[in-house]
Amino acid sequence: MSAAPLPAEFVRIARYFAPLAGPGGLALADDAALLRPRSGHELLLSLDTLVAGVHFLPQDPPDQVAKKLLRVNLSDLAAKGARPVGYLLSVSVPRDLPEEWFAHFSNGLAEDQARFGLALLGGDTTSTPGPISLSLTILGEVPEGQMVRRTGAEAGDEIYVTGTIGDAALGLAVLQGRLADPSGTLVARYRLPEPRLGLKLWGTAHAAIDISDGLLQDLGHLCRAAGLGAEIEAARVPLSLPARKAVDANPDWLATCLTGGDDYELALAVPERNGAKLAADAQKANVPVTRIGHFVAGPPQVTVRDAAGAALVFARGGWSHF
Amino acid sequence: MSAAPLPAEFVRIARYFAPLAGPGGLALADDAALLRPRSGHELLLSLDTLVAGVHFLPQDPPDQVAKKLLRVNLSDLAAKGARPVGYLLSVSVPRDLPEEWFAHFSNGLAEDQARFGLALLGGDTTSTPGPISLSLTILGEVPEGQMVRRTGAEAGDEIYVTGTIGDAALGLAVLQGRLADPSGTLVARYRLPEPRLGLKLWGTAHAAIDISDGLLQDLGHLCRAAGLGAEIEAARVPLSLPARKAVDANPDWLATCLTGGDDYELALAVPERNGAKLAADAQKANVPVTRIGHFVAGPPQVTVRDAAGAALVFARGGWSHF
Repeated sequence: MSAAPLPAEFVRIARYFAPLAGPGGLALADDAALLRPRSGHELLLSLDTLVAGVHFLPQDPPDQVAKKLLRVNLSDLAAKGARPVGYLLSVSVPRDLPEEWFAHFSNGLAEDQARFGLALLGGDTTSTPGPISLSLTILGEVPEGQMVRRTGAEAGDEIYVTGTIGDAALGLAVLQGRLADPSGTLVARYRLPEPRLGLKLWGTAHAAIDISDGLLQDLGHLCRAAGLGAEIEAARVPLSLPARKAVDANPDWLATCLTGGDDYELALAVPERNGAKLAADAQKANVPVTRIGHFVAGPPQVTVRDAAGAALVFARGGWSHF
Repeated sequence: MSAAPLPAEFVRIARYFAPLAGPGGLALADDAALLRPRSGHELLLSLDTLVAGVHFLPQDPPDQVAKKLLRVNLSDLAAKGARPVGYLLSVSVPRDLPEEWFAHFSNGLAEDQARFGLALLGGDTTSTPGPISLSLTILGEVPEGQMVRRTGAEAGDEIYVTGTIGDAALGLAVLQGRLADPSGTLVARYRLPEPRLGLKLWGTAHAAIDISDGLLQDLGHLCRAAGLGAEIEAARVPLSLPARKAVDANPDWLATCLTGGDDYELALAVPERNGAKLAADAQKANVPVTRIGHFVAGPPQVTVRDAAGAALVFARGGWSHF
């Protein structure tokens, strides 16, 4: 426990966090959680930190911040084909933060715990003279030896993405007053990602990653890990209806979609022979998947081609023909 | 990964953190770590957060901060009788933090990893407009079903502590100019705790806790968890030579020793019949242990008695006879 606990630390833990604890969390009454993975499974661990003013706005609703924190971590598990098990939480807050913040924050966690089937295992709450700082360590499990990694793509593998690409980045543009969003879809996608859990990626995908920093950058990670290039067809990249409208009105928005962050969709390297298997699995998991290109032998870079096969090059905030 | 990575994030991870990664850390080149606990064992997880200006001083040497972060977490494992396995790390730093900070910080981690036998599994680095904020999730393992908990003390159990009590709190007083410390022992104990790993507590102790918030407060946790009182004899509480000198010169320092934080020694509830077993185990692990009192039926409070058996009462920063 902290060497300098908040005066209200123990009360807060009992009131807001203990009700979220799963069996391994020992009611948060101990200094450690206990975890016995299911037989034949191994554990995955991932950690993401969100800082107010960097990753979210101080005035963002606390329940939404809680969900975003949980979901960006769940997205890492989704990219591995893992089932969520539990999480540990670090919450550092200014001393004068109103008590309601904790009530709303823990409500958000409770709702998403129920939705995604995991429970709190432990954590720490401290004060900070700085902004709210949240760190979450998530645990998931996969059948032994079956974790899908960033490495492993092979030349010829097809590239699939889940859902639609770019909505979150366009949503940010809407919040910045640069784009209209009558339906509110884009902003909603920016505010709260949908982790693409449920795909049994092992045996289907050679490699996978979740798209948090933008499709092109994250595909680039798969390329570098495999020592391969990637070719994608701009016209195949799945766009939502409002994103399609924006791009049709001004093609520059395509660059935003392909390079903007916060999608939390998955990019997959799938050998052609597994295409049908992926489609069946995706249908069962209710996760849309779209083939957008393939990996090629060559330097580790991502090439985007237009309908005529010409390479599009990203240049200072827009796209131009090569 | 972070939605807003530091420009230098990937370089920093490769340079300073990837060399610390164990096999399950996948060279930190993936978004998740992999962990397969040894057969017949289960995992313990614990998390502690340190914030500059709250838990350490911004000008503290970064290698020492790294070691403190690791050791306060190792201390939680020690209290469970667990063997350390690995850890995940969240590092949030101001954008203008000099690059050397990372070099020194990762050096400190490397030294303590080697010393305590664990490795980095993963983590996240982000920027923050606030102070340096560090969060560490530690993983350990114990034979299945053998974790020692806070709950479990029984009336009649003897209370043991490891090492000496109060040095860290006196060390802080030295740094504040309120006490002399010619040998430097007290300050060293404040700056860097020594996690009491190596005791095989299962089968020996009914309950245990690490003393981070002060002996009396942490013993109080064991009392509340068991619904018992505790009686300790002030004269039996083990003090280091410099602490003994301070208390002999001014008995008020005893209150500091018993209530001050940052000892990171262990307090154990051990049935009388296991005393010899504990002594043998402690000798083998090279951890000094001292019996200081026992648990009693009654309200969950800690009573400290002087040589004549009179209860000492803590009153506004000093001790007075009841």
